[in-house]
Amino acid sequence: MKRKAIEAIIVLGDTTLANPDLAYAVGRSLARGGIYFKRVSSEPLLLTSLLDVHNARKGRVKTVSTFTDYGYEKLIVEHGQAEAYPRLILKVLTQLGVAGKVVIAGRNDLAWGTHLIDRLRTLGVSVSGESSPTILEVARGTKSTDEIHEIREVGNKTTKVVDKVLDKLKSAKHKRGHLLLGGEVATVGAMKRIISTQLAIEELTAPEGTIFAIGASSADPHNSGVPAAEIKERKLIVFDIFPQSESGYWFDLTRTFVVGRADRRSRVLYNAVQAAQDAALNVLREGLPAQSAMSEACDVIEKHGFRTVRDIYNGKAQKISSGFIHSLGHGVGLTIGERPYLSLQSKDSLKTGNVVTVEPGVYIPKFGGVRIEDTVHITAKGCETLSNTRKEFELN
Amino acid sequence: MKRKAIEAIIVLGDTTLANPDLAYAVGRSLARGGIYFKRVSSEPLLLTSLLDVHNARKGRVKTVSTFTDYGYEKLIVEHGQAEAYPRLILKVLTQLGVAGKVVIAGRNDLAWGTHLIDRLRTLGVSVSGESSPTILEVARGTKSTDEIHEIREVGNKTTKVVDKVLDKLKSAKHKRGHLLLGGEVATVGAMKRIISTQLAIEELTAPEGTIFAIGASSADPHNSGVPAAEIKERKLIVFDIFPQSESGYWFDLTRTFVVGRADRRSRVLYNAVQAAQDAALNVLREGLPAQSAMSEACDVIEKHGFRTVRDIYNGKAQKISSGFIHSLGHGVGLTIGERPYLSLQSKDSLKTGNVVTVEPGVYIPKFGGVRIEDTVHITAKGCETLSNTRKEFELN
Repeated sequence: MKRKAIEAIIVLGDTTLANPDLAYAVGRSLARGGIYFKRVSSEPLLLTSLLDVHNARKGRVKTVSTFTDYGYEKLIVEHGQAEAYPRLILKVLTQLGVAGKVVIAGRNDLAWGTHLIDRLRTLGVSVSGESSPTILEVARGTKSTDEIHEIREVGNKTTKVVDKVLDKLKSAKHKRGHLLLGGEVATVGAMKRIISTQLAIEELTAPEGTIFAIGASSADPHNSGVPAAEIKERKLIVFDIFPQSESGYWFDLTRTFVVGRADRRSRVLYNAVQAAQDAALNVLREGLPAQSAMSEACDVIEKHGFRTVRDIYNGKAQKISSGFIHSLGHGVGLTIGERPYLSLQSKDSLKTGNVVTVEPGVYIPKFGGVRIEDTVHITAKGCETLSNTRKEFELN
Repeated sequence: MKRKAIEAIIVLGDTTLANPDLAYAVGRSLARGGIYFKRVSSEPLLLTSLLDVHNARKGRVKTVSTFTDYGYEKLIVEHGQAEAYPRLILKVLTQLGVAGKVVIAGRNDLAWGTHLIDRLRTLGVSVSGESSPTILEVARGTKSTDEIHEIREVGNKTTKVVDKVLDKLKSAKHKRGHLLLGGEVATVGAMKRIISTQLAIEELTAPEGTIFAIGASSADPHNSGVPAAEIKERKLIVFDIFPQSESGYWFDLTRTFVVGRADRRSRVLYNAVQAAQDAALNVLREGLPAQSAMSEACDVIEKHGFRTVRDIYNGKAQKISSGFIHSLGHGVGLTIGERPYLSLQSKDSLKTGNVVTVEPGVYIPKFGGVRIEDTVHITAKGCETLSNTRKEFELN
């Protein structure tokens, strides 16, 4: 805040759900959201509805009041519904003695937000915008010990789900060239139902779905899998799971495998990707430019004879359709994609407390793809994986 | 748009997840979101990433292009990352010939949004804010036939979940005053795991959780249930389920029941609430002021001898701690709480295509509560329930 000459930051919203900045500021899930005020060098203040106030007091902010305490209902009577909200913010800012620049953050409808900001400016508040990375994006990038603990918990549960799903697949019966699960031919759809059930048992949700793609569809990193596709032996399967727990924290984990024995070509892909991940994990540590980790992974994959997105950046190609066609990783926390980004364009340097995915992949159109992904925690000396699950390429 | 003298509306965001206005505008789930442009009296235009373009073309907008088609990457090279986005919007608006007022909608971080709006204004775009109800809130309030079909599908799945959960409870064994499920004493936590599993089977998620509250905790309409609480016979149980399907649409359904026989006091509460719901369902139809439906429910509950929130509005009480302490209902669609609101303060009139909950409740602190809720579709002649599940008060 000091660097940007901001005197106060306000984070607001009608829920903490899918509102990571507000969830981060208050450290608690609030059904009806609230308004968080932080003046530089002062303790924060949080206003919530009567419904959420008890829950809010168990969170990160010591001083919690209600809208009613600050006379919100009276402001509605005096100024009308639309004007009461900016008046409430003005009242608190005046009381806190804020006269300088104010940033207003939190995920909200921009049409409503434009109205709010315009009204506050008319009322004399100096509202400033921020381009990315915002103050809160930067703050959220470095996780506290408590946050790493939460993410590790989600990781442990995710690991259990993955292990259970792989066990189910291993227990499938083989009959006349088909795999059978509970007497039925095993399909991607059936595997997805097993995944959903295991997620439910671990009290996790997958708001953005789960990828379970087999054969040619695994060559497209964003193909989540065709439900009717049959699970066949020797075909590459990419299983990418990214659940969220009730705490709001996410996790991201990918395993690639085949049922039975892999063919030579699949094994070549797998070895290249595993070597790239090992190399990246080996260099990750506090202070490393994030793009160096990506370069390291590209080096290894190119040595194994595949193209990488580096060809686009150094002008060797307009676009590439096979090989390592995405970035190495991204931050994970109260969102499933945040700073720092481990990409060639990244200007971030790694810090202790960053939690990032390390997920190289190699994709061959019409054949299949391999991606191996772990979520790790950056430390002064290196990195520590938060996903302690086995890596098995051939399920027998 | 014409009424507000708005020439164009832009809806944007980095995902359609938890971004109901963008999901509504594009009619499709887009992992990386996009920018939707609608000039008054013209067909809309949608820009997405290369990743989402094929999926976007299956949605509501006929003309879909990519950021790349509009030279986004070049704008990044020329103007830098932060400036490229407003420049891209300016480029499209110029091409569409938009010179008048523009509303920018969609759920996004307000700090980033403030920066975007300020940059666009500096570049000569006339950006207007909106207080609630925004153009999109109003549009989303009236559901199309396709949308009602989607909500009905979520309703059918929700009904299946509720029926399965009640069947499980009915099949519990009775042993020395305890209910047993799978050999274990039945608890709220065990019921929640059954609910999660059934939701997973129906491919539904419950991003805001599920309420399964027994006894005194059912007297607090926002108590989601204490996991360790034992399921006992004759105690009131409020089961309120509000899942979302992959389509983005939500559903809302509440049943209240007891295991075994109800005592007289519980039955009195139940009869009052059921009579209030029947009365409200009876008056709901196109053209009815939303507050009249709430008044109707209050009339019935007061006749049964309980207080209602009307006492606060007509000055009889400062606050009420028992009786009908919330509103009758709210709209349901791409959010779980939207216009129209069936409350005493509501200024909405009902329209054909509204989908609303009808959920009266009566709560007695330290004893328990009853709430009965269905989601219905408003028509010219009345209303039609979208939750065809039984109402059983005593589970035997």
